[in-house]
Amino acid sequence: MSEYAVGVDLGGTNLRVAAFAAEGRILDRLSAPTRIEAGREALMQAISGGVHRIIERRSGDRLLAVGIGVPGFILIEKGIVTKSPNLPGLENFAMREDLERRLGCPVILENDANAAALGEKWRGAGRGVDDLVLLTLGTGIGGGILSRGRVLHGYLGMAGELGHITVEPRDGAPCGCGSQGCLEAHASATAIVRLAEQEIRAGRLPALAGQSAPITSEMVYQAAAGGDAAARSVFERMGRALGLGLAILINTFNFPLYLLSGGVLPAWDLFAPAMFEEARRRSLTLRQTDTRIAKAELGEDAGLFGAAYPALTGAKELSRP
Amino acid sequence: MSEYAVGVDLGGTNLRVAAFAAEGRILDRLSAPTRIEAGREALMQAISGGVHRIIERRSGDRLLAVGIGVPGFILIEKGIVTKSPNLPGLENFAMREDLERRLGCPVILENDANAAALGEKWRGAGRGVDDLVLLTLGTGIGGGILSRGRVLHGYLGMAGELGHITVEPRDGAPCGCGSQGCLEAHASATAIVRLAEQEIRAGRLPALAGQSAPITSEMVYQAAAGGDAAARSVFERMGRALGLGLAILINTFNFPLYLLSGGVLPAWDLFAPAMFEEARRRSLTLRQTDTRIAKAELGEDAGLFGAAYPALTGAKELSRP
Repeated sequence: MSEYAVGVDLGGTNLRVAAFAAEGRILDRLSAPTRIEAGREALMQAISGGVHRIIERRSGDRLLAVGIGVPGFILIEKGIVTKSPNLPGLENFAMREDLERRLGCPVILENDANAAALGEKWRGAGRGVDDLVLLTLGTGIGGGILSRGRVLHGYLGMAGELGHITVEPRDGAPCGCGSQGCLEAHASATAIVRLAEQEIRAGRLPALAGQSAPITSEMVYQAAAGGDAAARSVFERMGRALGLGLAILINTFNFPLYLLSGGVLPAWDLFAPAMFEEARRRSLTLRQTDTRIAKAELGEDAGLFGAAYPALTGAKELSRP
Repeated sequence: MSEYAVGVDLGGTNLRVAAFAAEGRILDRLSAPTRIEAGREALMQAISGGVHRIIERRSGDRLLAVGIGVPGFILIEKGIVTKSPNLPGLENFAMREDLERRLGCPVILENDANAAALGEKWRGAGRGVDDLVLLTLGTGIGGGILSRGRVLHGYLGMAGELGHITVEPRDGAPCGCGSQGCLEAHASATAIVRLAEQEIRAGRLPALAGQSAPITSEMVYQAAAGGDAAARSVFERMGRALGLGLAILINTFNFPLYLLSGGVLPAWDLFAPAMFEEARRRSLTLRQTDTRIAKAELGEDAGLFGAAYPALTGAKELSRP
């Protein structure tokens, strides 16, 4: 009888479930669409249904625990989701208790960016590194901070809101958090689209002007990769904002590794030169040490690995603040 | 035979030494001027001489270890001071080994801002709080971060360079670190003088114009306390820069407590309103939680307490990165 854990990545689009052997091998996996509009009960049923299907296929083996990566704020000690902008039905929901009842085994909740950081540490670009920061560059920007091998949660589980550190205090773009000039408003996929639309309005991005479909960051990427100067300048500005944010983190933590992941990562060659230049200018620590800023390796699977990791290894101990 | 530890605060102006009982009572203390110009050997002799005088007066008691707060970068594992702008003779010096030889007991080095944070946690405004950030607002700005009760050192001991997080990326003042717009360049005593000098040149601070002596932050404080609008605006701008820096830290750490100390602290009433306003504007976490920004309590003694703390309690274990 071998032991295994289940990891669940609860994304805004897809729900993914996988069984992991102790050494990190994926034994089995499945995915299903996340139907937010069907409501919370349907979502909890979908999660428990997915986990049960995995469990049934492993009869004879011993399930240790189920770890779930959730996009939102979590009161870690209590297992309560307090805010989840992308899954609105989960707010102020005692999700851990609900799922432990449905599944009959220990459940560990973790914020999705924290889970991605744990996943990269366990099986990705952070192997062997106990102190690292991961930034997820997608529609928004999330952050996961690992200190001495464990997630830095803060006293309420709200640490790592790195998308909301200010990088443009004077003329920064407004942000959903109520501030303006947040990293997220200047270096996410959403920011890339906003900057490109500015270029279009100024008549500097004819390749994307007059599109009938809404502009996407992918379109801006294609234009930049094709050599369009205005599209390239969008990625340079995005890279500079990211470099400033990274310099703040490097000066604060002096960790050896800062990882970038998410949908914007394929544009690395377009934004990285400006990012490195700005980060070096802003951080003596970066200039004087072998600190690394690097690409994450696991892609979408990082969160799945990271959700399963605490479930496999000492379970609750690891997810305490 | 009772046990005690010795704490040393190696400041740019004064060297202070004290003996501490296990529960944190100061048993004995002395201080002497730090004569930087006499060179490193004289400084090491002054430290060991001061510690020996304390030891001689406690014959019969058992010395556990000596902890020293040093203004500079320290490779914690190796006990080497790598940079110390205010005590230039110490650069790349194996200070721990040198002092252990002179004193014949374990020596623990710690950065002075980290020591101040530990001191406040042990006996000051951070009692009972395991996760806090301390900013020392003096000529420069230093930072000490405590996570799970221990100093967050980073992998090379350079964490907490919070004076160099960028708060004014566009038109910020140049900083000694090579960047511009650093927190230190906008919220330290030096920044207050710089901002006041701008006001004087613009003819808006007649109370301080035509002084024969160089302007000091104390003079600007007196003018502001006396109601001078331009001097008050200096503290408002300083408070706003500080609030922005604090918001970045709050969004990053979600710690329950952020402490301010140092020579600028008496001006709290002048800078705090703008600081709180800006920090609240920039941090959803601050607005939604009971996070506190507060005054440190131990004044200059914080570093002395914090230097002694790891020497008393488990010694080296505590000062590991």
